Amino acid sequence: MEFLRLNQPQTNILFMPKISQKGQIIPASPIRKLVPFADKAKSMGKKVYHLNIGQPDIKTPDVMLDAIHNFSEEVIAYTHSEGPLSYREKLATYYERAGIDISPSDIVVTNGGSEAILFGMLATLDAGDEVIIPEPCYANYNGFAAMGDIVVKPITSFIEDGFALPPIEAFREAITPKTKAILICNPSNPTGYLYSKEELETLKQIVIDHDLFLFVDEVYREFVYEGEVHHSILNVEGLEDYAVVMDSISKRYSACGARLGCLVSRNKTLIKTVLKFAQARLSPSILSIAAAEACLDVPDSYMNEVIEEYNSRRDMLIEGLNRIEGVICPNPKGAFYAFAQLPVDNAEAFCQWMLEDFDHEGKTVMMAPGAGFYASPNTGENQVRLAYVLNKEDLASALECLEAGLAVYPHRTVEQQMTV
Amino acid sequence: MEFLRLNQPQTNILFMPKISQKGQIIPASPIRKLVPFADKAKSMGKKVYHLNIGQPDIKTPDVMLDAIHNFSEEVIAYTHSEGPLSYREKLATYYERAGIDISPSDIVVTNGGSEAILFGMLATLDAGDEVIIPEPCYANYNGFAAMGDIVVKPITSFIEDGFALPPIEAFREAITPKTKAILICNPSNPTGYLYSKEELETLKQIVIDHDLFLFVDEVYREFVYEGEVHHSILNVEGLEDYAVVMDSISKRYSACGARLGCLVSRNKTLIKTVLKFAQARLSPSILSIAAAEACLDVPDSYMNEVIEEYNSRRDMLIEGLNRIEGVICPNPKGAFYAFAQLPVDNAEAFCQWMLEDFDHEGKTVMMAPGAGFYASPNTGENQVRLAYVLNKEDLASALECLEAGLAVYPHRTVEQQMTV
Repeated sequence: MEFLRLNQPQTNILFMPKISQKGQIIPASPIRKLVPFADKAKSMGKKVYHLNIGQPDIKTPDVMLDAIHNFSEEVIAYTHSEGPLSYREKLATYYERAGIDISPSDIVVTNGGSEAILFGMLATLDAGDEVIIPEPCYANYNGFAAMGDIVVKPITSFIEDGFALPPIEAFREAITPKTKAILICNPSNPTGYLYSKEELETLKQIVIDHDLFLFVDEVYREFVYEGEVHHSILNVEGLEDYAVVMDSISKRYSACGARLGCLVSRNKTLIKTVLKFAQARLSPSILSIAAAEACLDVPDSYMNEVIEEYNSRRDMLIEGLNRIEGVICPNPKGAFYAFAQLPVDNAEAFCQWMLEDFDHEGKTVMMAPGAGFYASPNTGENQVRLAYVLNKEDLASALECLEAGLAVYPHRTVEQQMTV
Repeated sequence: MEFLRLNQPQTNILFMPKISQKGQIIPASPIRKLVPFADKAKSMGKKVYHLNIGQPDIKTPDVMLDAIHNFSEEVIAYTHSEGPLSYREKLATYYERAGIDISPSDIVVTNGGSEAILFGMLATLDAGDEVIIPEPCYANYNGFAAMGDIVVKPITSFIEDGFALPPIEAFREAITPKTKAILICNPSNPTGYLYSKEELETLKQIVIDHDLFLFVDEVYREFVYEGEVHHSILNVEGLEDYAVVMDSISKRYSACGARLGCLVSRNKTLIKTVLKFAQARLSPSILSIAAAEACLDVPDSYMNEVIEEYNSRRDMLIEGLNRIEGVICPNPKGAFYAFAQLPVDNAEAFCQWMLEDFDHEGKTVMMAPGAGFYASPNTGENQVRLAYVLNKEDLASALECLEAGLAVYPHRTVEQQMTV
């Protein structure tokens, strides 16, 4: 630094404090990075259909909103770092109803599922350690890994195979002495992939053989279609010390903005470690917990109606996408996302163009560029993630916008369109 | 690992997944680690006075509680990663009233001041980089540094000097090529130290000379006594690219449990980087923001009354502490903490004993062991932090408990008591 200072006094830019390497490396969220363009489009009077983010339009259950309206404390005070026992007991009852036997002491309540992912990673992986994640994966796994200088080792799945996982043994091949954990999302955001019981059993053997943690993001546990069944990793016997679940009320109760999740594990050392991270940030929000405490009072009919609604949206969106010339989209079995290939070279440029330079009768659609869901460089660049979180009328309009946009997009790749 | 496996098949403990080094190193919060003992004391019917944590008993302003009761959205939805513009505009107006000229684009809203500290550190310090912090310091700085494998270089202040800072040039002496930032808390939690304008000017020269960020935790901005004035680092000219403020609504409006803070800087590159971290966790809680949006409607009289109340509590606590034989406590100028020396060898053991093995007429007091507020090992072991966040009647009872406890504590250090 002194050397530079003496020899290059003219370049003032060198003499400012620098941001960190990880700050430079951490990717902007593919779900969020185009928000300024969407804001600008809206300020110009355009209607923007948000398929970029898993923000459902579904109404939050009344009992949870009522709990907010009836918040009776006179002081908005800290609660326990791991969340109040009363709420963790209710969570245990929720898991019991889902057929999962969990004790309140196995749970640390977090600021969204996000913080559960971050704390889980930090508690088990040091700088330079590796976590194996099938891709395309939830984009923010890359962000949280970057925060801890953790290396994501991706296992790529392909749209041609409907994003089916490569043989599960591919996980074994990716293991190095630096590998500390495997992370899957089940059902998967963004592909909708649903893991079979057999696949979980195979993963069990792998993590036991190699002393790895098995993180499973089960945020979309309830969102499973076509009569399929979700198998929680917490129900796989023999994984008590290995399995770690990241969970959230965000999707289940359409309460994303409460930012309330939890980390669940029967590994006492891990929970104790995660609690130290949780103590550093003091506590989760007591306002969000007030809403979440009402979760047990949400009637079964609420969830049944929600799943039925998503099922019909999925059918409509997938059919609509595949009807557009040059668009390919496999049929997801769970979650509420579709991962599609478009007849463009660079889906991010296309998504930005849709917001900046295009409208169809005053409307346009916002999607999440696919490349951000891969850890491998230069992968998925002609793909997008679409969340079917709008009602069917809006979804139909969004599909119309997409079709109209692709029809006039100056950089449409006709060649590519022919080959797929 | 294979080697161990082959040679020590009998030690099954080796064949479990391991938590990270940082997970082992991160300290349990000195503010929170004794909570299980407090819970147990309460379950046995003891009344516990909580002086361990900065959780005020002050009522949250009605306008903020009303905003919660009137939350009118039908969906608890995500908001912008940096916080909604409407709220950042209100924050800018708050800063304007405090004499600080800040634009909404200089602000990223965070999950508590905690997340502002974490994101600020991660955006500027890589693993192995150093941040200089005067100690005793807010204990969780150590926790957040541990999350990023960041090294805290402490500058120790001493109770004998009333925790006055060593000559400010001590900061300069602590700088190495690995130093990327200086972090101060002004006024200081836990010592109440208030930085003078001249000290801030000296720090300015140091950070400019060495290209460092200057982080200032100004969470207690309003909590200043004896007619002293708080000087914000944001008002020091020439620090536009260097100064970063961590802030929170927690203490100002007695809304700790909302977990809503912000990071403020005029350094555009830093804000852009912090935003990437913020995007990874999607957004702050919209419920907390609903409460915080009402902050501009909090009447001036609220804050004036609160400061007056704390001032009288401070006078009473400090006088009461120094009246107890063997206890020494300097008079803090700001925040709402006292940092005292007790006639014991190990204040943590004493604090635990007070919860586990002692009561005075069915009551006891919980304090935060002092050692956890130092980054230097084996320092402050006979000290405690006390938050004067209870009403004067309770404070008087807590003082009685402390005096009675010290009088009968089996490990009281009479010798030490004589020498101070």
